[in-house]
Amino acid sequence: MKNSGTARARRRGLKAIKVVQFGLGPIGAELVKYALKKKGLQFVGAVDIDPNKVGKDLGEMVGVDRIGVSITNEPKKLLAKAKPDIVLHSTGSYLKDVKSQLLEIMRSGADIVSTCEELSYPFLKNPVIAKELNAAARRNDVTLLGTGVNPGFVMDALVLTATGVCQEVRSVKSSRIQDASYRRLPFQKKIGAGLTLEEFRSKVAEGTIKHVGFQESIAMIASGLGWKLDRIDEVIEPKVADTTVSSQFLKVEQGQVAGVNQTATGIVGGQPLIVLNLQAYLGCPDPKEWIVIDGEPKIDLTIKGGVHGDIATAAVVINCIPRVLNSKPGLMTMKDLPIPSGWFSDLHNFEHKR
Amino acid sequence: MKNSGTARARRRGLKAIKVVQFGLGPIGAELVKYALKKKGLQFVGAVDIDPNKVGKDLGEMVGVDRIGVSITNEPKKLLAKAKPDIVLHSTGSYLKDVKSQLLEIMRSGADIVSTCEELSYPFLKNPVIAKELNAAARRNDVTLLGTGVNPGFVMDALVLTATGVCQEVRSVKSSRIQDASYRRLPFQKKIGAGLTLEEFRSKVAEGTIKHVGFQESIAMIASGLGWKLDRIDEVIEPKVADTTVSSQFLKVEQGQVAGVNQTATGIVGGQPLIVLNLQAYLGCPDPKEWIVIDGEPKIDLTIKGGVHGDIATAAVVINCIPRVLNSKPGLMTMKDLPIPSGWFSDLHNFEHKR
Repeated sequence: MKNSGTARARRRGLKAIKVVQFGLGPIGAELVKYALKKKGLQFVGAVDIDPNKVGKDLGEMVGVDRIGVSITNEPKKLLAKAKPDIVLHSTGSYLKDVKSQLLEIMRSGADIVSTCEELSYPFLKNPVIAKELNAAARRNDVTLLGTGVNPGFVMDALVLTATGVCQEVRSVKSSRIQDASYRRLPFQKKIGAGLTLEEFRSKVAEGTIKHVGFQESIAMIASGLGWKLDRIDEVIEPKVADTTVSSQFLKVEQGQVAGVNQTATGIVGGQPLIVLNLQAYLGCPDPKEWIVIDGEPKIDLTIKGGVHGDIATAAVVINCIPRVLNSKPGLMTMKDLPIPSGWFSDLHNFEHKR
Repeated sequence: MKNSGTARARRRGLKAIKVVQFGLGPIGAELVKYALKKKGLQFVGAVDIDPNKVGKDLGEMVGVDRIGVSITNEPKKLLAKAKPDIVLHSTGSYLKDVKSQLLEIMRSGADIVSTCEELSYPFLKNPVIAKELNAAARRNDVTLLGTGVNPGFVMDALVLTATGVCQEVRSVKSSRIQDASYRRLPFQKKIGAGLTLEEFRSKVAEGTIKHVGFQESIAMIASGLGWKLDRIDEVIEPKVADTTVSSQFLKVEQGQVAGVNQTATGIVGGQPLIVLNLQAYLGCPDPKEWIVIDGEPKIDLTIKGGVHGDIATAAVVINCIPRVLNSKPGLMTMKDLPIPSGWFSDLHNFEHKR
């Protein structure tokens, strides 16, 4: 029985925690780069379906030294042979697309930390899959966590944490205001930078311009506070450039779309009590994370400059590894685990360390 | 076996969680007032040594309606008879003064949340007592937590939480800058407001002007990050009024002491890597909590206006009750428990709620 994770840790002894990276897109590569810096972790495999990546060395693929681990497109074989303690999973945002991967990994007996946005709090939007994944995790005596910077941290776990000092919470608003100028090109395209208004609207209609995770963050906040959600409303608007703005990749003329302004509102007892607002656009003058809790006391929390998405997602995922290894089995969320701080010593020393 | 707390919760069924308040100073009274608002909690007793309080009704004593629970100075008898599930403990800042109380409560089989500052992270300054309390908690199958707004939240747990998005942490600085003008008189006196410089220095020398908790907060941060502390340096300076300032209680002339400016520095590898600074004085123009993490990425987090001490301490203590009830047995700290959010529904619904 895994339970506290202690028994397994004892069996593992002083051997490194064996890790497999599952999915080598930009986020997967970032996970690997940070994980390679941690003491006590050892990569024993990596999975991707891209023929250009299969067979290559994992270290080289992410732009560092060779590590003698090659990328495969046969996860089942790898998992059976390498027997990882934990798998870092980053292949998609939607549970329907990644469910079978998660089930296969769990059958191998490995814990999982995944960046799948819908996994961060699946109980509202995907209750059937959530139940199935939770049952599979318990059956296989493993822990499954979905996390990242957003969803997973700045707009949900951190918001909930801030309510810890409140005797009363009347409403919650969290804004993530980002300057997209310095992000990678795929991100700038994803938020619609450089499009006309018509192009933007049609991409919103077809679902390609959309932050996935607000449903999950709002559900996590409501559940964490003990509030019952009536429904969640979501609106995606363009952020129109009022002057010419540009990044190293793109130039946006005045009147074109500089980025996205997405708002989701959790309705509780008929009132809009949880509001999440994400603005990401080129030329944003004052990027920040901004949490306002109307409560007793009132909390007005700002992270100046904001938190860099890709770096922070990799940080949160890797920093959660020891907590996932120590957790009881099941499908966990960020609100179920101990506070997700960084850990900068050998991972073996995490357990029971004071 | 308590373990996850689930077995006990099941035994308790739908009966209210039985609570005893131990210590009825200003903080104890604030705990009671907030706890009385929570669904699923029921006071079954209260303890204080003050002859003016013994025999009085607990509700009346804290300024609300009678609740039919009288205050006693015989804790042993009360605990044996009332069999609380949890005891809220607020009688002192120092472990040597409260240790025997904590042991007595644990012998009765109750969990404890205490505002004792030294209990928030006792492993560095009080390792022997910490070991004894941890052993007693395990022997009695109960959980013991020391918490509050500071130590316990804004200068340690929240700092650690903020590092969760970091791939690297080079140093940590946390400042708590408070306007004492609107706090109660004992607080204003405690920070030295209205004293001459000589009076201030002599009170610092005799140990009466001092925030207790920096040693604990720094030790918790270092431990949470996996850093090894060489030592902690502490400096207590006066904040001198550069103009006349006043509160409803006190007037401070220019050149007199308006409050305190206390800094503690955790030295790691010969470097000052953890700096905590507390300023509390009359007339402070820009009160705030301010956490700066020099890392990758850099985090610059501010809570504008700061967090009100007494309200927040009561909030943190009461909000932690369900997590303490659910915890495995032992001496826990804020970094060991799930993120400490508020919970505004019946406490019975907390367990296993999504």
